[in-house]
Amino acid sequence: MNDQSPAHDRQPPSPARERVRARYRDEDFAERLASIPWNGALDTMLLHRSVRTYLDKPLAPGILETIIAAAQSAATTSNLQAWSVVAVQDKARKARLAGYAANQKHIHDAPLLLLFVADLARLRAISRDQGHPGLGLGYIEAFIFGVADASFAAQNTITAAESLGLGGCYIGAMRNNPQAVADEIGLPDETMVVFGMTIGYPDPATATDVKPRLPQDVVLHHERYVAPDPARIAAYDARMHDFRVEQEMRLIDWTEQTARRVSDEAALTGRHVLKDFLQQRGLILR
Amino acid sequence: MNDQSPAHDRQPPSPARERVRARYRDEDFAERLASIPWNGALDTMLLHRSVRTYLDKPLAPGILETIIAAAQSAATTSNLQAWSVVAVQDKARKARLAGYAANQKHIHDAPLLLLFVADLARLRAISRDQGHPGLGLGYIEAFIFGVADASFAAQNTITAAESLGLGGCYIGAMRNNPQAVADEIGLPDETMVVFGMTIGYPDPATATDVKPRLPQDVVLHHERYVAPDPARIAAYDARMHDFRVEQEMRLIDWTEQTARRVSDEAALTGRHVLKDFLQQRGLILR
Repeated sequence: MNDQSPAHDRQPPSPARERVRARYRDEDFAERLASIPWNGALDTMLLHRSVRTYLDKPLAPGILETIIAAAQSAATTSNLQAWSVVAVQDKARKARLAGYAANQKHIHDAPLLLLFVADLARLRAISRDQGHPGLGLGYIEAFIFGVADASFAAQNTITAAESLGLGGCYIGAMRNNPQAVADEIGLPDETMVVFGMTIGYPDPATATDVKPRLPQDVVLHHERYVAPDPARIAAYDARMHDFRVEQEMRLIDWTEQTARRVSDEAALTGRHVLKDFLQQRGLILR
Repeated sequence: MNDQSPAHDRQPPSPARERVRARYRDEDFAERLASIPWNGALDTMLLHRSVRTYLDKPLAPGILETIIAAAQSAATTSNLQAWSVVAVQDKARKARLAGYAANQKHIHDAPLLLLFVADLARLRAISRDQGHPGLGLGYIEAFIFGVADASFAAQNTITAAESLGLGGCYIGAMRNNPQAVADEIGLPDETMVVFGMTIGYPDPATATDVKPRLPQDVVLHHERYVAPDPARIAAYDARMHDFRVEQEMRLIDWTEQTARRVSDEAALTGRHVLKDFLQQRGLILR
């Protein structure tokens, strides 16, 4: 290295500092964590970014089973394991599902689409076999742990995939047309696709950068919850602005984009009917 | 190694095989994945187990900030970041919160209790500042992405903690008395503690083993959802029976325990009122 800058003279190399700096774009915060002993798991998680451009290459044998083994190793509420995952690799089915989810191009292109299901139907079957009434399954409590269990599993899935050189992207738009999605994969009552996830080998020609997140002090509270400091939110707007310039994205403040995203019924892209949909399927009745 | 058993002669050592075998207790399935290239992230996730016995030792400086940096690196719906985390280290506050959560001993003992919050209040504040009505926040769609975002973040948190030699345990019982928990940490409307998590250095005197999960073919579906095969559920009952014998736990079939856990209102340990609670806080109105 021929880099003679004073900053490099002062600072020994630290993967912790580098990864934290990329995630927050805050030099002082990165410096505070510079001496944390680093490891492969932290590196994989801090380097996460959504991948939407894939090579036309099927997954190697055993990869799907390995990432789902990581998913099943995640915590689950009282070991109820109230989730399932449907792996879709058939091109025609993937195309139909893309049609229900804003026709996102990466759903067509990815070799694998995973649909994460909050699954109370399996607990219903077990309750029936055991001669128990399963009344708890109709409460919003059960829906919460189904969504949480599916989410824990999904997060381990994407971390596992990224650790193996794959990339992925969550597809919240699978909630845009929940009935059509459920019909396509034959879901029974008391289940719901919470989100999808595309998985594949990232196209190196379309590298994306790590997206900055809110300053940690906005998200992490000590002892009691504190309302967000507008100055810290403004600092994030500025960091996201820089990111958007670098990535040649449309320029809009994060706060403005965020406020629009939850503004009204139309902004929910079809998801304003989810309550009726869930109740028709026997969920969140009480 | 003096182990001359034929099984060891036939099989070269494989961390993948060993970890998958521990998670599923299925020799054939473990063999199928034996040649997967292994890494530290997979190893951390496959080795996950809940830790409920901690050394009386505070967290090293920077550890909390590092595991929350991993949490913030998780995916979040449309980058809305609809979650917060409250770190409780004050012993008296931890004791009061334990009192609301079945008085679990490890909440008292752990140096750190994290409370993961589905946080739509921050999005409310941003909407107000931007002059947008924020009507979307009252829909169950917004509650779903709040719960999912909090869960993605929490799963990265526990993986990060475990990669650094810490252990943790999710506390679903934080939903037993949601109003008391919210009051204790000053939560505003449009927020909810989805679950807690204790974090600390595991007491090596109380080692626990990896808990087996359902056979993968019960959870992973291909192309379309398939109802569970009773024979495969029975196979899991048998594996969980062996695990319970080894761990000197009370002997009850997993299916029986599971059916009881969702049997009726009483089995929900206070959580049958969550729907009213959420609506009073301005959540899941529509």
